[in-house]
Amino acid sequence: MEHLEGRESVLAALAARQRRFQVILIREGAHRDRFRDVLDLAGERGVPIRFVEDRELRAFAHGASHGGVLAVCSPKPRTTPDALLEIIARARAAGRAPLLLLIEGVDDARNLGFVLRSADAVGVDAVLVKKHLWDFDPVEVARPSSGAYERLPLVQVEDIELLERLKRDGLRLIGCLAGARKAIYERDLAAPTILAIGGEKRGLSGAVRSVCDAFATIPARPGGPSFSLSHAASIVLAEAMRQRMVVAPPNS
Amino acid sequence: MEHLEGRESVLAALAARQRRFQVILIREGAHRDRFRDVLDLAGERGVPIRFVEDRELRAFAHGASHGGVLAVCSPKPRTTPDALLEIIARARAAGRAPLLLLIEGVDDARNLGFVLRSADAVGVDAVLVKKHLWDFDPVEVARPSSGAYERLPLVQVEDIELLERLKRDGLRLIGCLAGARKAIYERDLAAPTILAIGGEKRGLSGAVRSVCDAFATIPARPGGPSFSLSHAASIVLAEAMRQRMVVAPPNS
Repeated sequence: MEHLEGRESVLAALAARQRRFQVILIREGAHRDRFRDVLDLAGERGVPIRFVEDRELRAFAHGASHGGVLAVCSPKPRTTPDALLEIIARARAAGRAPLLLLIEGVDDARNLGFVLRSADAVGVDAVLVKKHLWDFDPVEVARPSSGAYERLPLVQVEDIELLERLKRDGLRLIGCLAGARKAIYERDLAAPTILAIGGEKRGLSGAVRSVCDAFATIPARPGGPSFSLSHAASIVLAEAMRQRMVVAPPNS
Repeated sequence: MEHLEGRESVLAALAARQRRFQVILIREGAHRDRFRDVLDLAGERGVPIRFVEDRELRAFAHGASHGGVLAVCSPKPRTTPDALLEIIARARAAGRAPLLLLIEGVDDARNLGFVLRSADAVGVDAVLVKKHLWDFDPVEVARPSSGAYERLPLVQVEDIELLERLKRDGLRLIGCLAGARKAIYERDLAAPTILAIGGEKRGLSGAVRSVCDAFATIPARPGGPSFSLSHAASIVLAEAMRQRMVVAPPNS
C-alpha cells in the first residue's frame, strides 16, 4: 500500500479510478466543507473515511503539505503496452492525432511532477518513462503534478522495442536535442507524435536517438543557459498544442 | 557581504562584473584543473583566492552543492529605473525590440531561479520583480538559475509608476492571464514588450492589470491543470523568441 497526500492528489486519484483505496484519513475537527468533494466522491466509490488526530496524520505524512487529508491506497498502476495501443486507437477514433511524451534522465521527483503537470495541461495521451524513474517517491512526484500523476497513463519503457512498435503504428518519434539543425517550429508536431526529451546532463540516450525519425531544438540565444528539462518539455508540448490549434495570425 | 556557491555561480558573477569580490574559497586538495577557469578569471579581476579545509567551506555553505568553491562578495546590485531605460535604449540602438519580463507572486526561491534561467536563455533585456522577492535567499535563487541570476539585470518594482514610464517609452505591457480572450500566439510579442506573469494563487495583481495594454492566455486543454508559474513563463518567453525569429513553416 502507498499513500497519497493532500486534497488535490486524493481527489484526482478518486476521479481517475486507477487505484484501489483502503481508507481516507481526515484530520479531526477539520471543516467538513473544505473536504465536501472528497467526502462525496469517497462515498460514491465506497471508500471508508476515518477522522483521526493530527498526530496520526503527521506520522504518515512526508511533509506538512497534506492539509489535513491523506489516503491509503494501492500504487498507481503502470499502463501496459497493449493498453497504450488501445489509448492511441481511441484518440484516432475520436479524430485526434495521438501525442505521447517520452522522458529520460529526470534528476528529481519534483521535476518529473512538473513535467507531468505540463503534459496533462496540453492533453498528451500518455507519458513514457524509463524504468529508474519508478524509483522516485510517488508522493514527491504527485505533489507538484497538480493531479496529473493520477490522471495520466504512465508507461514504463525498458528498451526501444515499444518505441519501434509505436512507430509501426504510425507515430513519429521526434527527439529534442540541443543543436539540432531544425527548430521545433519547423517540425510537424500536429501529426501522430512521440516527443522524446532527455536529461540535462546527458541528453537523450544513444538507444533512443537511434530510433528517432527526426530531431528538433528549442531556439535560445547563443551563449545563454539551456532550459531545464521540465521547462524544455513545457515549451515543446505547448508548441505541439499550438500546431494542433487553428490560430489567427498575431494582431493585437 | 553575501556568498556565492558553486563553480557556475562564481564564474557567472566574475564574468558579469556586478559584484565586488572579497575572496574566493576553494577546497584544499581540489584538482586545480577543475577550477582553472575560476582561478584565471579571479586573477584577471584581482580577486584573492584562499585554499581552505573542507570543514571551513561547509561552515559557510547552505548545502552540499558548492562542489568545492565559494565566493564572499557584495550582494547582486539592483538595476535602477534609469539604468533600465539605458538598457532599453541600447537594445533599440542595436536594432532589437526590447523584451522585459515582470514577475509577481513567485512562491519560492527555486521557482524564481528557474524563471531567470529561461529568461536568460531567450535573451530578455531585464527582469522586473516585486519588492518581496528580494527577501528570498540569493543562494537558493542563484542555484537553479544556471548563472542567469548573475547575468540578468534585475529591477525592483514597487508600484506601477515604472511600468507607466516604460509604456511612455514605447513598450507594450502584455498580461498573461488564464482565460484571456486571445492566445499568446495571437498577440504581437515581436514589438517592444513587457510580459507580465503572476503567481499561481492570485495571478496578476489588480494594480498591474490596470495598466496592461492587452492580455493573453496560454492555451490548455479544458479541465486540465494550469501550468506552474515558471513553466508558463518559459512558454511565453519561447513564444516571444519564436515571433522574433524568421522561421520556415513546418515541413519535416
